[in-house]
Amino acid sequence: MQTKWKTMLTILLNPKSPEPLYQQLCQAIRAKIADGTLKPREKLPSRRVLSMYLQVSMITVQTAYEQLTTERYLYAVPSVGYYVDPDALLLVHTPAPTDSIPAPKPPASSVRSDSIAFSTSGVDLKQFPFSTWAKLSRQVLTAQQEALLHGTPPLGLSALREAIAAHLLAFRGMQVSPEQILVGAGTEYLLGILVQLLGASRRYAAEDPGYRKGKQILRCNGASVIAVAMDQDGLDQEKLQRSGASVAHVTPSHQFPTGTTMPLRRRAVLLDWVNAQPDRYLIEDDYDSELCFQGKLLPTLYSLDQGQHVIYMNTFARTLAPSLRIGYVVLPPKLAVQFAQKLSFYACSVPAFEQYTLTRFLQDGCFERHLNRMKKTYRLRQAILIKQLRSHPLSDRLQICGEAAGLQLLLKVQLPCTEQDLIDAADRANVIVTGLPSYYDVPKHLPDQMSCIILGYARLSPEQITT
Amino acid sequence: MQTKWKTMLTILLNPKSPEPLYQQLCQAIRAKIADGTLKPREKLPSRRVLSMYLQVSMITVQTAYEQLTTERYLYAVPSVGYYVDPDALLLVHTPAPTDSIPAPKPPASSVRSDSIAFSTSGVDLKQFPFSTWAKLSRQVLTAQQEALLHGTPPLGLSALREAIAAHLLAFRGMQVSPEQILVGAGTEYLLGILVQLLGASRRYAAEDPGYRKGKQILRCNGASVIAVAMDQDGLDQEKLQRSGASVAHVTPSHQFPTGTTMPLRRRAVLLDWVNAQPDRYLIEDDYDSELCFQGKLLPTLYSLDQGQHVIYMNTFARTLAPSLRIGYVVLPPKLAVQFAQKLSFYACSVPAFEQYTLTRFLQDGCFERHLNRMKKTYRLRQAILIKQLRSHPLSDRLQICGEAAGLQLLLKVQLPCTEQDLIDAADRANVIVTGLPSYYDVPKHLPDQMSCIILGYARLSPEQITT
Repeated sequence: MQTKWKTMLTILLNPKSPEPLYQQLCQAIRAKIADGTLKPREKLPSRRVLSMYLQVSMITVQTAYEQLTTERYLYAVPSVGYYVDPDALLLVHTPAPTDSIPAPKPPASSVRSDSIAFSTSGVDLKQFPFSTWAKLSRQVLTAQQEALLHGTPPLGLSALREAIAAHLLAFRGMQVSPEQILVGAGTEYLLGILVQLLGASRRYAAEDPGYRKGKQILRCNGASVIAVAMDQDGLDQEKLQRSGASVAHVTPSHQFPTGTTMPLRRRAVLLDWVNAQPDRYLIEDDYDSELCFQGKLLPTLYSLDQGQHVIYMNTFARTLAPSLRIGYVVLPPKLAVQFAQKLSFYACSVPAFEQYTLTRFLQDGCFERHLNRMKKTYRLRQAILIKQLRSHPLSDRLQICGEAAGLQLLLKVQLPCTEQDLIDAADRANVIVTGLPSYYDVPKHLPDQMSCIILGYARLSPEQITT
Repeated sequence: MQTKWKTMLTILLNPKSPEPLYQQLCQAIRAKIADGTLKPREKLPSRRVLSMYLQVSMITVQTAYEQLTTERYLYAVPSVGYYVDPDALLLVHTPAPTDSIPAPKPPASSVRSDSIAFSTSGVDLKQFPFSTWAKLSRQVLTAQQEALLHGTPPLGLSALREAIAAHLLAFRGMQVSPEQILVGAGTEYLLGILVQLLGASRRYAAEDPGYRKGKQILRCNGASVIAVAMDQDGLDQEKLQRSGASVAHVTPSHQFPTGTTMPLRRRAVLLDWVNAQPDRYLIEDDYDSELCFQGKLLPTLYSLDQGQHVIYMNTFARTLAPSLRIGYVVLPPKLAVQFAQKLSFYACSVPAFEQYTLTRFLQDGCFERHLNRMKKTYRLRQAILIKQLRSHPLSDRLQICGEAAGLQLLLKVQLPCTEQDLIDAADRANVIVTGLPSYYDVPKHLPDQMSCIILGYARLSPEQITT
C-alpha cells in the first residue's frame, strides 16, 4: 500500500454502531475530502486493499465507493478504480445553523452551456404544444372552477383514468378497466407506492445495465435490489431464477440504456418465471414505447399475461414534459383490490388542475397528434445521427444498436480504447457522452476491443448533431 | 364460546407462510364476510377468545381487527368489541380479470348528502379566492411558457422557497434559509420522504389520540410506530422516554384532535428529550397554526430548538385547498445536507405550474389576505357553534375545549353514556359527529361519566350550525 494512502486511512469504523459500516466509511471519506487529506483527482485504494486494511468486507468498501460516486464525491474509471471528483469540495460544507446548504450539484452535462450533450434524460421541450396546453388550461380554469379545489379520488380523476384506458386500448391493444389505473406524481413516486403495496421485505430484480435511479428508489424505500445481468435480449433467465427475487423491473419495449426490444419468445419465458410462483410480479416499465420507429410494437407483457402478475407502468414525462409530474400504473385486478384496501387512504398526489387539463388533452386527440409529430421529429434526428456516424472515417469499427425505438442509441466501438478514453476524447471536442459501464449497478469491464457509448439525442437539434 | 362463532372459526392459519399471520386472518375474515358466514352488524369473538382458539397471540388478532376496521369491514365499539360493518359487503368483490374493482368506500360522513357532518377533514372551499387564483394561473401560463416545462430543482422552485421562507419569518418569526425548505406533493408524500431520510429502522412516536393517517403512512413506509399517550398538555414525557422512539411526530400548535396548545414549559421538556441523544428528531406538524383565534401564537419548536433536531412541516391543504397537493418541510441544516446527498435524485413532486402560481399568490400578498378573511369566517362559525352549545338544556354537562385555534372543537360530555351512544343519538338526528376514541391507536376506554366528541366545523355554514 502506498504511503500516502496510509495517511488517509486513519479511519475508525465501529461495527457496534447502528449506522451501517459502509455509511460510516462514506462519512469518513467525505471528511477526508473536506479536510483536504484526499485531493481532487486522487486515486482511492482498491477495494481489496482498503477492505484488508480496515478489516471489513469488500462489499462494504464497494458499497461506500458506489454511494460516493452517486453523490459525485468520487468518479469511477472502469477497470481502473475510483478517483476523487474534481468538484467534490463544492459538496463538502458543514453549514452553521442558518448558513446556506450546498445545492445538489447539477449533472456534469449542464456545466458548460456551449457543449453538445447527448443526454438520455429530458426531451425536446420546444416540441411541446404549449399553446394547445395553455388553451386547455384556460378552459379548465373557466369551466371547472370549484371542481378544481375538491380533491380527486385516490386513484385519480375518473375521466382521466378512462382517457388513459382508451389510449392504452387504441395504442397498445390493452384491455384495462379505469379502476385498475393509479395516477401519481411521476413514476418515481409510483415506484415507492409499489414497494408499499408489494412489500419492502421482498427482493427486487432490476436490469443490469439499466435504469439506475429506479434501483436507488427501490433501495430508498427499503427494498433489497439485485442487479441481474442482461443478455442480448433481456434479463439472463438463469440468473433471474437464481437471484431469489420475487419482483422484477423490466423495460421490454426499449431497454434502457441498450435500446434492445425483448422478442416474443423471451417475453414468454419471463411470464413463465412470474407465473411459476403465486406471489411473483413483473413491473413492466413501458417508457418510450410511444416512440417506436420501426415495425409494429410487440404486445406488452401485461397483455400477454394470463395470471394477473404484471404491473404496467408509464409516464407522460417523456412524451409531454417532465415538469408535469404525471405517471400511472395499471394494477392487475387483485392488486387493485389490495391497493383499495391498504393504500387508498393516500390522497391522489397529482393536483386536480393537471388531471383535468391532461384529460382534455387526451380526449381531444391532442396527445395522439403530438405523438405523431414527435415521432417524425425524433426519427429525423435519429436518421441524421446515424448518417453522420456511418460517414465517419472509422465507421467500419462502429456498430449502432437500439434504433428501433426511443430517444437514445447504443454505439459499440471496436477500437483498442476504453469508454473513458472515448468520453475524454469527446469531452476535449466539447461533446458530452455517457459510457455504458455507468449504467451497471457495479461498474463492469466490457470485452476487450469493444467500448459502448450511449447517445441520447432528444434534446439536440439537427444542426447540433451535424457539427 | 358461542356456537355460531364456531362455524365462523374454521380458519386455518399457516405459520410457515411468508404472509404475516394477521394478514392471513384478515383474509379469512374478509372471506367469511363475503360468503355470508359473518353477517352485517354481527359481533366478532373477543381478541382473547379468538387468540386462544386459533393459537395465535392477542396482538395478531388485535392487528387483524384494527386492519379490518381501517378498511371498514369492521367497526369498533369501545370497551365492547368489534362488529361487521353494515356496508362491508360492498367492499367484498372477487373481480374477474377485466372486472371492475371496488372503488374505495367513501368516508361515512359523505354517504348522506342531507346530513350535517361535523367533519374534521377538508375546508370550506367556497372561501377559496378562486378568481384571484385563476387570474394568477393565466398570468403564469402567459409569462412563464417554456419555464413551466422545465423541471424545477429537487427541493422546489427557488422563488417559491424564498416566498415560503418570507412567510415563515413574517408569520411565525422563523429564521429559515430557502435551501432548508423541501416542497412536495402534500404532507402525506413528505412524511414518506422523511422516513427515507431518517431511516425506517427507527421507532417513531406519535400522539395518542392523534393523526391516525400519519401513523398509517409511517407504517406503510416500513417504520415502527408507537402511540404515546397524551396528557393535558402534550405527549406524556415518561411514556415517551420509555417508548424507545428516536423520532416523535407532534402537533404543538393545535393538537389533533383534542385542540390543546402545548405550553412553553412543555415545549422545553420536549426539546430536552430530543437533544438528550444526538440522533433524535421531532417532526413538528404546524397544521392549522395560521388559524389562531386567541392571543399570540407560541414560538415553534423549530425556533426554540438550538440543536438542529426539529423538522418543521406544514401544508397549504388546510389554508388553501387540499386538491393543490402542496406541502413543505423545513429541514435543519444538517438534514438538508443529508437530503442533498441521499435523496436529491428525486424530482420535485409538485408540477411547475402550481409552484409558479403559488409563488405569485404568496408574493402578491394574496395568501395573507386570504388567511385574514378565513380567520374571520371560521372565528364566527366557532362563536355560533359555542353559543349554540352553551344555550343547550344540558349545557352544564358540556365542556368545550380546543377553541384557541384550528377548525375543530373537543366537546366533553358529562353524562352516563358512551361516545357511541352520543354518535348514535346524533345520527338519529341526521348529524354526523366523531368520538374521541376513534382517534386512538388502540380504542380506549375513557373515564366513566365522560364522553368526548370532536366537532369539525370548517365546512358548515352558520345556518347548518344553528339547525
